[in-house]
Amino acid sequence: MKKLKLSLCQMKVVDDKDANISKAVEMIYKSSKNNADVVALPEMFNCPYDNSKFHSYAEDLENGETIQAIRKAAKDLNICVIAGSIPERSEGKVYNTCVVIDSKGNIIGRHRKVHLFDVNIPGKIVFRESDTLCPGKDITVVDPGICKIGIAICYDVRFPEMFRLMALMGAQIVVIPANFNMTTGPLHWELLMRARAVDNQIFIAAVSSARDEKAHYVAYGNSMVADPFGNVLGRLEAEEDILLVDLDLSEINRIRNELPLLEHRREDIYEAYQTEKDTN
Amino acid sequence: MKKLKLSLCQMKVVDDKDANISKAVEMIYKSSKNNADVVALPEMFNCPYDNSKFHSYAEDLENGETIQAIRKAAKDLNICVIAGSIPERSEGKVYNTCVVIDSKGNIIGRHRKVHLFDVNIPGKIVFRESDTLCPGKDITVVDPGICKIGIAICYDVRFPEMFRLMALMGAQIVVIPANFNMTTGPLHWELLMRARAVDNQIFIAAVSSARDEKAHYVAYGNSMVADPFGNVLGRLEAEEDILLVDLDLSEINRIRNELPLLEHRREDIYEAYQTEKDTN
Repeated sequence: MKKLKLSLCQMKVVDDKDANISKAVEMIYKSSKNNADVVALPEMFNCPYDNSKFHSYAEDLENGETIQAIRKAAKDLNICVIAGSIPERSEGKVYNTCVVIDSKGNIIGRHRKVHLFDVNIPGKIVFRESDTLCPGKDITVVDPGICKIGIAICYDVRFPEMFRLMALMGAQIVVIPANFNMTTGPLHWELLMRARAVDNQIFIAAVSSARDEKAHYVAYGNSMVADPFGNVLGRLEAEEDILLVDLDLSEINRIRNELPLLEHRREDIYEAYQTEKDTN
Repeated sequence: MKKLKLSLCQMKVVDDKDANISKAVEMIYKSSKNNADVVALPEMFNCPYDNSKFHSYAEDLENGETIQAIRKAAKDLNICVIAGSIPERSEGKVYNTCVVIDSKGNIIGRHRKVHLFDVNIPGKIVFRESDTLCPGKDITVVDPGICKIGIAICYDVRFPEMFRLMALMGAQIVVIPANFNMTTGPLHWELLMRARAVDNQIFIAAVSSARDEKAHYVAYGNSMVADPFGNVLGRLEAEEDILLVDLDLSEINRIRNELPLLEHRREDIYEAYQTEKDTN
């Protein structure tokens, strides 16, 4: 597929799992009505972004009600869903996990957030995901029969190594379910999304929850899509809304032919210095 | 040293080597008068940015008139100079080379541009440095007795791998002599400078030539400094000018304590995927 319509659902997440699931399904239906090929949900779309909630909201991916409901919607509507993330319970541990569901309703991929958000900016934002969550170990690129899609969750975006590897693994779009906050959002959100797009010459689609000033953690919103040259193709504001963007995947090759960044990498040199650093 | 004053000399380069050397020395004197500790010159400061000029302007680093004049100014003024770049002749080859000169006038480091600028954006910008220049093989971090300074030249900035390695090698500032153009400048210049700063939590100082609309290659200008949180501490416009910025190096540790990005890297995972990719 050369062209596709992507829908980012910037939903307002509340402290009621059933209400969150219903809202997500409703937004998937709206996206389908608007002819989206791929629809994406935000990070922790079924659960408030709050350490005190992750364990009680956590579910098994196969049998939990959240993913079952999303899979049914995907199948009924014949649409691919990047199911943001939910707290995943597995073997007694909880992960921040994104599930990719193809248009037949099958789970075709899973990304567990690799880099946990442990920050301490005094007076602004303090959060330690590692108090309640375990990190993933995998870099995730899946192909739901549309194109190759990489997945990163929020804080993962701060690690350029991961995006480079996804690009080298063939990702054409990286979808990033994410909740930046009111400190890092204004300074870093668009900057990092556009930089990952430009460096790797891929599309970046970042989908946030809507901003809720009363929430424990106030999400920045501003869901957006950047093209492989760093242009912003669309961007929401703070409120609950859907962003629909048409992507022309042939842009990737056009731009890589003009400015062959991936070919110009000097992996021999990077590896030599990496090795030198490791042996010091 | 915890605080230092950095001076970026956005000089207008002309097709006259002696005039360029005189201008560079004059701007180093002005920087010194303004109490700069470190002064930086732009890419190809002694030579028009033009493939047809690089060989005729090229010099040996030790005996060439350009670096001799800059070393004398550094010694006379007791100031550290990041000597932008010049076409360096060595063993029959020509490199795009930055020389770092300490406040005693000694050459303490040399960076040869690793990633050559070979691009073809039809109707906008076509350039092939590799027609006339050879690439360097080294990643460069030097300490002129002030702080650890990494060097990248222009197109090198597009490779996040190199910046990560410089940060891991201890660079606190990366100085980037660079000539972006009127296509890539408006879209990518500030974006990439700020992103490298934010990802690696270092200062980035990018120094361009002044814009000359009549030149073969029209430089973007906009010399700038970004701090480790991505704030722009100062930025010039298109004309010849000097940017003086005070850097507080203690900001690096403060920000890394709040948001420990380098600690949170999962090198084990990146290496596993890098290896997998290589063996496929």
